[in-house]
Amino acid sequence: MAHQNPDYRQDTEDLFTSAAFVMDLGIQPVDIRPGEVEARLVVQPRHLQQDGVIHAGVQATLADHTAGAAAFSVVRKGQRVLSTSITVHLLQTASGEELRCKARVLRAGRRLIVTESEVHAVSGGTPRLVSKTTVTLAVMEPR
Amino acid sequence: MAHQNPDYRQDTEDLFTSAAFVMDLGIQPVDIRPGEVEARLVVQPRHLQQDGVIHAGVQATLADHTAGAAAFSVVRKGQRVLSTSITVHLLQTASGEELRCKARVLRAGRRLIVTESEVHAVSGGTPRLVSKTTVTLAVMEPR
Repeated sequence: MAHQNPDYRQDTEDLFTSAAFVMDLGIQPVDIRPGEVEARLVVQPRHLQQDGVIHAGVQATLADHTAGAAAFSVVRKGQRVLSTSITVHLLQTASGEELRCKARVLRAGRRLIVTESEVHAVSGGTPRLVSKTTVTLAVMEPR
Repeated sequence: MAHQNPDYRQDTEDLFTSAAFVMDLGIQPVDIRPGEVEARLVVQPRHLQQDGVIHAGVQATLADHTAGAAAFSVVRKGQRVLSTSITVHLLQTASGEELRCKARVLRAGRRLIVTESEVHAVSGGTPRLVSKTTVTLAVMEPR
């Protein structure tokens, strides 16, 4: 997929470091290409739910933000993206030392961008697909 | 809706305090009735995204966990619930001093419980509906 912003790589990396909630959770970008972004999160005890597995909200945040970054990597300089709907399918319980998320743009329209994210939980070095998410984002013009 | 667990109120309250991620975010139960739970979160700077509004992941976590609590309030003692899909519709950007979530059970089956959550952002004391979420949960037998 083509980018429309010569600074897409740096601008998309900044999308992670300028989002307080993403920094607070410990989500980090791993790879940024036009329309495709990978991110990771080192699992901490504070990310778990009542049964000791990773909270669905952690997965939803990682899937949503990485999808947003993938969408952001293909818009014009100064445009922003904003999620309008998020559908998370939780395939199995998630546990392990790390979450990895790969997001890609399925279609980049002028006003809406549709993306999908896959989250793998890495346990003992072995990744397992734990959730699949579709995120639709609105493209916002510069303020 | 009827409860099947005489301790439903205390057990559902414990579902908030025993979930590390929920405690970490500052989500607190406000009202617990069979099939209907309300929760709140006092917004902190760490809950925001890159444009200064509340991160969709915070809303998704609040909507999912409150829905899970509503489902949990109607299952038998010892049964657990686990989200299998979460669909968040973000209606407008969320900002303000507090998020309020009301979740209710739409249908409680033996194996699946379908719920819906509404999240309001309270700004200057005025609540605005910012997202609507459907969560489907699996009912798990005691381990």
